[in-house]
Amino acid sequence: MLDFQFVNPTKIIFGKNSVDKLGEEVSNYGKRALLVTGQSSVKASGLYDRAVSLMKDKGIEIHDLTNIRANPLLSDCERGVEICKKNNIDVIVAVGGGSVLDTAKAISVGALDDGDLWDFFINKRTVQKALPVISVMTVAATGSEYDGISVVRNERLHKKFGLVDVHIYPKVSLLDPQLTYTVSPRYTAYGALDIISHVLESYIDGQDSPLLQARFVEGLITTVMESVETVLENPEDYEARAYLMWASSLACCDLFAVGTGGGTIAAHMVECEIGALYDTPHGAGLSVILPAVMRYRLEKYLPTTARFAEKIMKVERKWHMSDTDIAIEGIEAFRKWLKKVGNPITLKELGVKKEDLENIAERIASNDYSPDKETALGILNTYYE
Amino acid sequence: MLDFQFVNPTKIIFGKNSVDKLGEEVSNYGKRALLVTGQSSVKASGLYDRAVSLMKDKGIEIHDLTNIRANPLLSDCERGVEICKKNNIDVIVAVGGGSVLDTAKAISVGALDDGDLWDFFINKRTVQKALPVISVMTVAATGSEYDGISVVRNERLHKKFGLVDVHIYPKVSLLDPQLTYTVSPRYTAYGALDIISHVLESYIDGQDSPLLQARFVEGLITTVMESVETVLENPEDYEARAYLMWASSLACCDLFAVGTGGGTIAAHMVECEIGALYDTPHGAGLSVILPAVMRYRLEKYLPTTARFAEKIMKVERKWHMSDTDIAIEGIEAFRKWLKKVGNPITLKELGVKKEDLENIAERIASNDYSPDKETALGILNTYYE
Repeated sequence: MLDFQFVNPTKIIFGKNSVDKLGEEVSNYGKRALLVTGQSSVKASGLYDRAVSLMKDKGIEIHDLTNIRANPLLSDCERGVEICKKNNIDVIVAVGGGSVLDTAKAISVGALDDGDLWDFFINKRTVQKALPVISVMTVAATGSEYDGISVVRNERLHKKFGLVDVHIYPKVSLLDPQLTYTVSPRYTAYGALDIISHVLESYIDGQDSPLLQARFVEGLITTVMESVETVLENPEDYEARAYLMWASSLACCDLFAVGTGGGTIAAHMVECEIGALYDTPHGAGLSVILPAVMRYRLEKYLPTTARFAEKIMKVERKWHMSDTDIAIEGIEAFRKWLKKVGNPITLKELGVKKEDLENIAERIASNDYSPDKETALGILNTYYE
Repeated sequence: MLDFQFVNPTKIIFGKNSVDKLGEEVSNYGKRALLVTGQSSVKASGLYDRAVSLMKDKGIEIHDLTNIRANPLLSDCERGVEICKKNNIDVIVAVGGGSVLDTAKAISVGALDDGDLWDFFINKRTVQKALPVISVMTVAATGSEYDGISVVRNERLHKKFGLVDVHIYPKVSLLDPQLTYTVSPRYTAYGALDIISHVLESYIDGQDSPLLQARFVEGLITTVMESVETVLENPEDYEARAYLMWASSLACCDLFAVGTGGGTIAAHMVECEIGALYDTPHGAGLSVILPAVMRYRLEKYLPTTARFAEKIMKVERKWHMSDTDIAIEGIEAFRKWLKKVGNPITLKELGVKKEDLENIAERIASNDYSPDKETALGILNTYYE
């Protein structure tokens, strides 16, 4: 097990109608709130009105930032920063999915800073302070509700980058699995991929593979896979929705990656460029890229990929099978499962053009922590069609 | 999965020589430290001198409270409170095992209070503030380094109670598995029991049994059991010591109990009275009482005990076996393992007198959250000899 540091100061309030505590929790942090929300669904479901009313009951003054979309835009963050500065906002409330919360986190940094917000995403400057953020999460996917990460798309540069900093953990996250009942089958499955990818990358290609953490990951992924199937049958199965939601929070907060030295996060880095160019859903991109990374790098990560096959995909090791056979069967079983729950498994399905691969690979290689161009191209070609 | 709240603000610094960060971390919280330590071992190992020198290098003024022993005494806490008040202590540093840290936590509360410290242990008053505590943990057992719990023995009343409060989480815990190399085989095995008991009680007899958490617990206990065996063979196996240490932290912090509604903690409540009367090591008492609780309450918790047998004790379910058969075989396999690693498995071995059982049961029944007298007596008699 490698050395590590771990701290996660977010308070989780989990369960049925936990959102009812919103007014009380927000009022602990001030009187003027910026309420960040997404597109229409949060209004259609009545959640927007419920949040507003809970806060108004506590005398909170509310300023709105709406229409945040998937692959959130830097320009929306800048818009939020302006509102904060103009109205002396005390606390930022994110009601929605990962993009809404990532936007809120970026705003929380920009609101107390006078420079260029993008600086923090390209490691030009480090965060010194941020406004408090409180989240009401409506999907089980990113885990943004329990981490100190904000991923934002700079539409001027066509770049999607992540800011990682201890100041941007939400102070409180209100998690009610019932709010995810209306997430469509497609997005439920995308979300599951996001959850799985957050733990699978360090499981497969961490610098070290401590067994304690590996077992946690195996329990988590197994439960996520079962729960997705349950939810596709019955979208209002509370227990399965609860597993997905809590697994989402645990997956991204590094708790099960500590001691591994972290994975190469190659799948995330490759997906980021595809998402930045094609605006594809993060989970959909990962569904193609994660198995592609595992397959392309099989020889390098053979023991962990073989263990994945046996412990998670439950591939039975027959006497004549080598580790490589087992591992390949595991990856194929994984892709079969992805297809079964409605995820794309080729780049072509995702709408990526063959002639763009070279360009995408070049863009990937130009980033820090990313695979080089040859590797990127290899990964992109693995499951192109 | 039941509703829950979870927050754990402690910063973990884990790994080889993490103790070297002590001076730096302490200096973030002030200039005058109370250094709480146990009996001779921390001096013999050189750790005491190392800690002092690291703090002195940062200009920290150090006041000592030494000779804290297992089943820590309220009177020692009161002694520490006095030193704090007299010397305007800013921060309390605990270097040692769970008793040292539990003492430090209790002192951190008393140092900022003018009433009777025991009040907080009997829920007469609730904690409003506490001095910061920083821990260097030298055993893998209690998990005190990653929780907001302090268990102290009031020697005047012969009572051992726990205080649970968010203010007493350590600010920072420095965990170096190498510091546990010198823990004796006997105490390594006691520690393992302590770790296992912290997750097993809510696994077996929680109000609910969410599968996600159950799988985490199964991974944790399996790894702890394997690691104890490794360490008994080779006390300096870093990986196994690291698993035990990190498992210890995770086990007690409630992370794998959330959503279960918590266990009945009957084993802990029964052991507390035995420890208070006979001054037996906590892990040794649990080694007898935990299986006794499982066996005595078998019918009530049959499905979870049967799952424990299959998933953790790897009992093979033969076609003719009922859940009861499986569960009993699992408990017996557990006791066999306990004996193998050197733990006591009867109260008689522990030195408990048969004629005291009635009295112990009465004392157990007089506490909150405890089994009634008949149940307590039933548990005590299950594996008396």
